Amino acid sequence: MKLGCCYFPEHWPEEMWADDARRMREMGLSLVRIGEFAWSRIEPEPGRFDWGWLDRAIETLADAGLTIMLCTPTATPPKWLVDSMPDMVAIDEQGRPRGFGSRRHYCFSHQGYREQSRRITRALAERYGEHRAITAWQTDNEYGCHDTVLSFSDAAAEAFRAWCAARYGTVEALNTAWGNVFWSMEYRSFAEIDPPHLTVTEANPSHWLDYRRFASDQVVSFNAAQVAILRDLSPGRDVTHNFMGFFTEFDHHDVGRDLDVATWDSYPLGFLEQFWFSEEEKTAYLRQGHPDIAAFHHDLYRGCSDGRWGIIEQQPGPVNWARFNPAPLDGMVALWTLEAMAHGAEFVSYFRWRQAPFAQEQMHAGLLRPDSADAPAADEARMVADVIGEIGPQEIAKAKVALVFSYDAAWVYGIQPQGQSFRYLELVYEWYSALRRRGLDVDIVSVDAALDGYSAVFVPTLPNISPAWIKDIEELTCPILIGPRSGSKTHNLTIPEGLAPGELRKLVPITVTRVESLRDGVVGEGDGWTISRWIEEVETDLSPELALKDGRGVVFARDNIRYCAAWPDRSLLDLLVERIAGEAGLDLMDLPEGIRIRRTASHIFAFNYAAHDIDVSALGLGEPVVGSAHMAPAATVIWTIL
Amino acid sequence: MKLGCCYFPEHWPEEMWADDARRMREMGLSLVRIGEFAWSRIEPEPGRFDWGWLDRAIETLADAGLTIMLCTPTATPPKWLVDSMPDMVAIDEQGRPRGFGSRRHYCFSHQGYREQSRRITRALAERYGEHRAITAWQTDNEYGCHDTVLSFSDAAAEAFRAWCAARYGTVEALNTAWGNVFWSMEYRSFAEIDPPHLTVTEANPSHWLDYRRFASDQVVSFNAAQVAILRDLSPGRDVTHNFMGFFTEFDHHDVGRDLDVATWDSYPLGFLEQFWFSEEEKTAYLRQGHPDIAAFHHDLYRGCSDGRWGIIEQQPGPVNWARFNPAPLDGMVALWTLEAMAHGAEFVSYFRWRQAPFAQEQMHAGLLRPDSADAPAADEARMVADVIGEIGPQEIAKAKVALVFSYDAAWVYGIQPQGQSFRYLELVYEWYSALRRRGLDVDIVSVDAALDGYSAVFVPTLPNISPAWIKDIEELTCPILIGPRSGSKTHNLTIPEGLAPGELRKLVPITVTRVESLRDGVVGEGDGWTISRWIEEVETDLSPELALKDGRGVVFARDNIRYCAAWPDRSLLDLLVERIAGEAGLDLMDLPEGIRIRRTASHIFAFNYAAHDIDVSALGLGEPVVGSAHMAPAATVIWTIL
Amino acid sequence: MKLGCCYFPEHWPEEMWADDARRMREMGLSLVRIGEFAWSRIEPEPGRFDWGWLDRAIETLADAGLTIMLCTPTATPPKWLVDSMPDMVAIDEQGRPRGFGSRRHYCFSHQGYREQSRRITRALAERYGEHRAITAWQTDNEYGCHDTVLSFSDAAAEAFRAWCAARYGTVEALNTAWGNVFWSMEYRSFAEIDPPHLTVTEANPSHWLDYRRFASDQVVSFNAAQVAILRDLSPGRDVTHNFMGFFTEFDHHDVGRDLDVATWDSYPLGFLEQFWFSEEEKTAYLRQGHPDIAAFHHDLYRGCSDGRWGIIEQQPGPVNWARFNPAPLDGMVALWTLEAMAHGAEFVSYFRWRQAPFAQEQMHAGLLRPDSADAPAADEARMVADVIGEIGPQEIAKAKVALVFSYDAAWVYGIQPQGQSFRYLELVYEWYSALRRRGLDVDIVSVDAALDGYSAVFVPTLPNISPAWIKDIEELTCPILIGPRSGSKTHNLTIPEGLAPGELRKLVPITVTRVESLRDGVVGEGDGWTISRWIEEVETDLSPELALKDGRGVVFARDNIRYCAAWPDRSLLDLLVERIAGEAGLDLMDLPEGIRIRRTASHIFAFNYAAHDIDVSALGLGEPVVGSAHMAPAATVIWTIL
Repeated sequence: MKLGCCYFPEHWPEEMWADDARRMREMGLSLVRIGEFAWSRIEPEPGRFDWGWLDRAIETLADAGLTIMLCTPTATPPKWLVDSMPDMVAIDEQGRPRGFGSRRHYCFSHQGYREQSRRITRALAERYGEHRAITAWQTDNEYGCHDTVLSFSDAAAEAFRAWCAARYGTVEALNTAWGNVFWSMEYRSFAEIDPPHLTVTEANPSHWLDYRRFASDQVVSFNAAQVAILRDLSPGRDVTHNFMGFFTEFDHHDVGRDLDVATWDSYPLGFLEQFWFSEEEKTAYLRQGHPDIAAFHHDLYRGCSDGRWGIIEQQPGPVNWARFNPAPLDGMVALWTLEAMAHGAEFVSYFRWRQAPFAQEQMHAGLLRPDSADAPAADEARMVADVIGEIGPQEIAKAKVALVFSYDAAWVYGIQPQGQSFRYLELVYEWYSALRRRGLDVDIVSVDAALDGYSAVFVPTLPNISPAWIKDIEELTCPILIGPRSGSKTHNLTIPEGLAPGELRKLVPITVTRVESLRDGVVGEGDGWTISRWIEEVETDLSPELALKDGRGVVFARDNIRYCAAWPDRSLLDLLVERIAGEAGLDLMDLPEGIRIRRTASHIFAFNYAAHDIDVSALGLGEPVVGSAHMAPAATVIWTIL
Repeated sequence: MKLGCCYFPEHWPEEMWADDARRMREMGLSLVRIGEFAWSRIEPEPGRFDWGWLDRAIETLADAGLTIMLCTPTATPPKWLVDSMPDMVAIDEQGRPRGFGSRRHYCFSHQGYREQSRRITRALAERYGEHRAITAWQTDNEYGCHDTVLSFSDAAAEAFRAWCAARYGTVEALNTAWGNVFWSMEYRSFAEIDPPHLTVTEANPSHWLDYRRFASDQVVSFNAAQVAILRDLSPGRDVTHNFMGFFTEFDHHDVGRDLDVATWDSYPLGFLEQFWFSEEEKTAYLRQGHPDIAAFHHDLYRGCSDGRWGIIEQQPGPVNWARFNPAPLDGMVALWTLEAMAHGAEFVSYFRWRQAPFAQEQMHAGLLRPDSADAPAADEARMVADVIGEIGPQEIAKAKVALVFSYDAAWVYGIQPQGQSFRYLELVYEWYSALRRRGLDVDIVSVDAALDGYSAVFVPTLPNISPAWIKDIEELTCPILIGPRSGSKTHNLTIPEGLAPGELRKLVPITVTRVESLRDGVVGEGDGWTISRWIEEVETDLSPELALKDGRGVVFARDNIRYCAAWPDRSLLDLLVERIAGEAGLDLMDLPEGIRIRRTASHIFAFNYAAHDIDVSALGLGEPVVGSAHMAPAATVIWTIL
Repeated sequence: MKLGCCYFPEHWPEEMWADDARRMREMGLSLVRIGEFAWSRIEPEPGRFDWGWLDRAIETLADAGLTIMLCTPTATPPKWLVDSMPDMVAIDEQGRPRGFGSRRHYCFSHQGYREQSRRITRALAERYGEHRAITAWQTDNEYGCHDTVLSFSDAAAEAFRAWCAARYGTVEALNTAWGNVFWSMEYRSFAEIDPPHLTVTEANPSHWLDYRRFASDQVVSFNAAQVAILRDLSPGRDVTHNFMGFFTEFDHHDVGRDLDVATWDSYPLGFLEQFWFSEEEKTAYLRQGHPDIAAFHHDLYRGCSDGRWGIIEQQPGPVNWARFNPAPLDGMVALWTLEAMAHGAEFVSYFRWRQAPFAQEQMHAGLLRPDSADAPAADEARMVADVIGEIGPQEIAKAKVALVFSYDAAWVYGIQPQGQSFRYLELVYEWYSALRRRGLDVDIVSVDAALDGYSAVFVPTLPNISPAWIKDIEELTCPILIGPRSGSKTHNLTIPEGLAPGELRKLVPITVTRVESLRDGVVGEGDGWTISRWIEEVETDLSPELALKDGRGVVFARDNIRYCAAWPDRSLLDLLVERIAGEAGLDLMDLPEGIRIRRTASHIFAFNYAAHDIDVSALGLGEPVVGSAHMAPAATVIWTIL
């Protein structure tokens, strides 16, 4: 695994570049990402390119022996470009333009900006596409950041109409598919269709779902247009895009199909603070992040691009954008880096080389402080480089457990939660966490991934189930656990004929006749476990495998397939994982709280996310090759697989 | 009492209609409401009417022996109509248009839309006005739903100016009435007046109150225009409109005067979740609704249309629109239906016949599931039909207790709460609940209702008291309890000469010299009771009947009239109800928590809202004719009055 | 000290004026403020002035022996004026116009309105500038109230561009100063610059800081234009403006420089409710206000205008604008008034003479009730007048302790809090409170105030420290305590070379290498004290004077200067105040909770903010000249300094 960093030569005096490059190498870094937001320096006036500084920066870095990932700068179109076509900006759901002054101020549907995006990509690729040191490209930056996938501009409306026409052929077909008769919402032509915002009350959920799919497709095609140019003009180089954490606004599997390598930007402390974790978890893991945040995304994004993946922005210290911004525990940056290695990352690159003393991210730490002295993360990077040298390159084996993830599902539940605490990402994360707490390695895969070869398959929920998917599942013999609301919707977000779980009824003969969403604090009591948030009434000839004390069935099974008709608590998840592991012949580990385990083809890694010492000798993994079984907070320990 | 349902033939294949009608009859239903949102099917293109399907639907239903309530479809103007005059939509308080894509996308003040509303009403009434099966009409649907009473459009501004001119005659009179000199807000002509929104800080409360009154009047006249056409073209049929729960944005007494029958849409579980009830109450009554929600509205709407009323949409299962959506307890749908009967409903109609598998309300239960099988409510409807057969039609007697309700008061306190927890509806509801907890039947009446004949009168608060009202009250000899802030404002929302309680001082010689609104948790301590939220300083020669421990008087009485100068807690309300009942010769009952009682002319009904069994034998009502005195959760029991 | 009141003759029938004036005098008042919002009466039509009523009002008041403060009415331009140039209104951050209908509906940058402001000021000054009874002028009213400092209008954008050009000379200099290269935010000309709103994510903090400075400067120049006219046409009269509480949207030191007297509007109960105080404090001081609210502002505004200050609006009872509006304890209005005297006020004027029965503030108490009877505050005013007579005029001595306050700092932390609980005003208030709890008198001074002569200096935080300031500090020999984040930013809100504390490193040789903001509930433990919210990592050769139990240094000292590298709790503040007082030779008092002390040149005042009796004999101050050492709630006691 390579180490690297994100570098912005345009932010620093040219005389600093050579020394920066030298110090990167000294620190054990071999990859540098540049050019991300540099449009105003590359093309300071319309059509006038200033290549000189970038030529020299690339040469300086290359001369130091660094390989370079070059970015297209399309996340930050300069002011002159925006002024030349003011309608290129996105319009938010409230109808306000999202103007110049920060970044991502463009609408994915604006044809004029799409042309500009291709033009600047071509200009960069023509100049540097075959440069010896350029080994990879990154398109744009963090598609969708700051809520920018959805736009309600005229350009978006126009493109959506065309998208609908292409999908449905006739407007009558669309009216039927959406059920527009419901409130006299029928259209007489595609031209009558608007984006689903600023309606008096909620718009038709089918309308929303198609708008989300359309918006996702716009991201895919925007990205694909850059990729096509890069493939053409920069042959043999990897193309990537840097995805974000806990982010489902577009379909990353779809974008991933056009990439060679999926990368993501890993900020565990900020994610802990900003998402649904409890106050207790936010306090216990304040300076570590919750133990499954990083791994969850490693496993998710590894499934987005055929197994090739990396981290292009790794948090190296406090950030600036969460409500509160603590510093990582000593050792945590190394832990995060090595955990990525254990999950098969090709590279981990820190964001950023040196903390910038100005502008929006001046409070975001780097490997260096603004005064160029080493920040604490620098030594941790060096330590990691040593470990990499010590244990050599790692190959990952396919995990034994698959967890199915669907961006479409996230949209469905976002549009129609039915109970305000039904959050798709949280449900999937809880299931993932239940597996990881017992030491299992997991592949997070898309709905159309091949599932043969896995020992167990987990599907936290999948609202829209196709006959083809049922056929694939039918052929599996391993234990499969499928969660609530699965099969409850058609492709168009309507209720399937014969009710939920729709197509799934072919495999598990049950009918969900009624559902309840429950207030916080209201639970159903099982034997040592509870359910909350969501419970289904099931009509079936099957006896439930697990039921509430009041007799209401919760888990129903036929053959190798279980259906869980409720939102399970951690105890119920633990119980189900135990049963399935028993059936699948999977070895579970009794891991102390805060410890996580991950295996490569040759090594076993353990990570201590707790804020106190933990001795893991009892795991019986023998003598470590790196670290000690008596683990300090934020420690990593590595054993060879015998 | 008739049973019925809401049916949307346009949502289902024509071949299902006859069987649906047959099953309705089999279930004991005799009334069916149709046509509510069908404009796009009735008039698919401007001026081209498609009557065929509706003719056939009506014939099919009529042939099965059902009587029909037909709706004007004006809550859902089709897209072509909106596109023909885009300024017909309402403008929200933030200045945004409220566009097409759901429902209620019209401004009550738009003259063009008013003309369209009359045109489609006339078209329907001309075709079906004298049809044998059409026994009633519903105008539009849920006026004001989704915050649609207030609009800030140009059309509304124009109409408001005319309304002001008609009311005040001269702009000088308006300036004086509103006190516009205060911040140089004086107008030189009516043309200078705008709606009171988007001001830098709060607009003049008198301005707001008149804007609310104007907006309410617009609803009244919009409705009246449809009613006039229906009366003309469909003689002898009842005209109704379906009101909502806990909704005070327009004056329902005013709209009610133009109707034959007031109907309302009863969703007790959703109302519990969405309104001010405590966490404890939301948990205890999760699947029942708070015991007074339904009855409160029965008694309120019975007072809106001269005693003739019904439920046109009764919740039959989980809904889709609350934050959380649990299912009713088994028996609850029957309980709600029978409770309506006990309060004198002419009909209870379930919303809806069959759950729609598509569009915005696909998660809203019906009597049938989307797959046409019976939903749990179907059997409860059958059970109710049997009970109705058993005990025969019920007549209601006038209650012995009157509670005075004022929509104008709700606006006054909404505009000028003075303390953020001073909520009119909650105060009235608490007073109503205190009466109902002791087994009293209550009439909720408007300010101009005749009060003679009642044994006790409760006025939770009435800010604007006219001399005429005082005269009416003066003639009563029964005990009267009047709550805080009564008489504190003139008709124009200014402070009356001589201070609060204004005209009321003629009856209770007190002067409120100062008021305090109190933070949550700050209370005044009485002897076994407390006051909170609001306390007044009273200057008077009277000795207080009840005082705080610190000596501050809370309840003042002269002759038969008491004034309560604070927001009372439940203990103080209980104490006052006991005293007044003693004076009025009213029998109070000691009801177990969760039990409610209601009498018709011939029967006594008891309802168990608790989630556990309760034995009510101790009430000493003898042998029930329906049900058992050992009541299960959600049980109803009925005795004959001997 | 004079007593006075705010009077609005235009709100009352002319026949009441003379009696009102007589009663003011009888109550002990000698100052009356008028004309504040009277534009629509002074100039009812464009260019047509109606001076008659104002002439008569002034004569009536003057004849009664009152001196008059006359106001420019520019906070309330009439409707005809707004209609004549609709773009004069401010545009809010969301892009919405802030229209007519309340007050302050103007944009400070609109040239047309500036001209109108000068025109009406000139008209008033020409007519009344040399009137015998006019002794003072107030410009406008509460600049910035209702969030009106910032506007995002075209006029503001245009003015901001000119401001930037004047400040930076070239756009390249601005690009460098702001670090616009960061996200390709570079401008090619000043004309390309927009206000920093409606950006996709946060705008550049340097952009924001300059926008705030620009907006503050607009207030300063708007005010200065009125002042210049008044000085010209009304020589010898004091000019003031009434500032607000806890308000930092513009630089009051800058505005103050153009005034003769700084005044402020003191509403302790509303401020307690609306600001960051804990639930416990809000309950304990419900009817008193927190004991330091009033004093904090007295000391702050005394520093804004060279020591001459007063209260022009003193809360006399419940107000209308807080979430909850309790009444002051009996005695509290007198306490507030006498406390202002103890801090050196030239006058205290109550808002308002008589409670208005109409419009927005009808629930705001006055000295008289709306029915003209005395409100409770009237007697307290009389009592204060007696005390003033008794103890004679008071002179203030310079305090021994200085606390440095910076509006620029408030903007910096508002723009870049880095942790959401880092609130500048709260930090400063906590430090002030720690000093006042021990009986110290405090001068709150601006950054450029001379600090020599003080026995101790406290700087809660000062992000932007200039070399000149360091030079001044260097010359001081008294103990100085400087708080977290000091010196952490350059003038342009970037990180200084050599890191924080920037210039301060010359005095305290430390480097802040990393900072953490902490969630609520996460603290660092010291010996009997804790830190929270903010903690810095410090690199230094100094041994910390105080450290956390884990060894992390918190307080670092060299010579007479201490730096506190964290947000201290009250215990740590107490400890630091004790140490510094010891070094400075300051006598500390052990004051019971709720008691505050303040000295003039001749007297010592004590105030009881607690809701219970407190005996302060133990303070050993001898026999009071006013009041008793056994203090009732809301009591004031006064001793002569021997």
